[in-house]
Amino acid sequence: MLKMTAYSVAFAVATLLVFAEPAFAQKSGDVRADIEKANQAFAAAFAKGDAAAIAAMYSADAQVFPPNSDAITGAAAIQKVWQGAMGMGVKSVKLQTTEVEAHGAMAHEVGNYTMLAADGKEIDRGKYLVIWKREGNAWKLHRDIWNTSTRTPAK
Amino acid sequence: MLKMTAYSVAFAVATLLVFAEPAFAQKSGDVRADIEKANQAFAAAFAKGDAAAIAAMYSADAQVFPPNSDAITGAAAIQKVWQGAMGMGVKSVKLQTTEVEAHGAMAHEVGNYTMLAADGKEIDRGKYLVIWKREGNAWKLHRDIWNTSTRTPAK
Repeated sequence: MLKMTAYSVAFAVATLLVFAEPAFAQKSGDVRADIEKANQAFAAAFAKGDAAAIAAMYSADAQVFPPNSDAITGAAAIQKVWQGAMGMGVKSVKLQTTEVEAHGAMAHEVGNYTMLAADGKEIDRGKYLVIWKREGNAWKLHRDIWNTSTRTPAK
Repeated sequence: MLKMTAYSVAFAVATLLVFAEPAFAQKSGDVRADIEKANQAFAAAFAKGDAAAIAAMYSADAQVFPPNSDAITGAAAIQKVWQGAMGMGVKSVKLQTTEVEAHGAMAHEVGNYTMLAADGKEIDRGKYLVIWKREGNAWKLHRDIWNTSTRTPAK
């Protein structure tokens, strides 16, 4: 009888742990490494002019918030955003992560970006905040917003 | 002996639950209501020209990422950002939440903002992404970035 109680309690441990444990858990340091790797893939795709590969790095229901534009939803529209940046003379992008904090299958990243022309001249630089979402085995950009750090003349 | 085992297992349950349970948990709907209430307080402080009250709504180690500026850290600098917006003729701010997702003591919010002049004329409108952090009994703005949705002429 007491032995059964011990088993029951052990079963309760297992049951409670299943419900208490988040659906997905990974150490923050590992998440940062994964996200930095994803950013390298983003930059590599950009340097190749492959906006479709960039769009594929976003989550199924991602939203992008570019400056001077309404919110952008959906892979086709997101691809167009980056195609547009390429069309405006941006030949490469540098992404420098300054912070990653993971919360289960979601994480937020703060970083700095630089957009460069073909001759290496800086077109724009600024900061960004991205919500990453774990989908399958990969971290995907889920919410993506940035703005320039350069001073533009007042309107 | 068996009884002791039962107690040991029960103790293990308690110990494991303490570690498995997030430090703070609240339903996403409740968090959204709290954040919308905080945004109302933000707008009310803004309408009163009280930049110090706005700065007090940010977390202890908050960062703000205004357009045309480097990242801003610390309560005094954050107060200056909003004082600056007031000085540029922004008399009121409208904040409209479109999404809140909570993860323990952190949450992210997506929304739209409008900045209005004294005569009610729109000075700017755009979207924002905020990471909120639970500090004590309150949700505080922890990472705050926005950009305009209006089209400005290319440089």
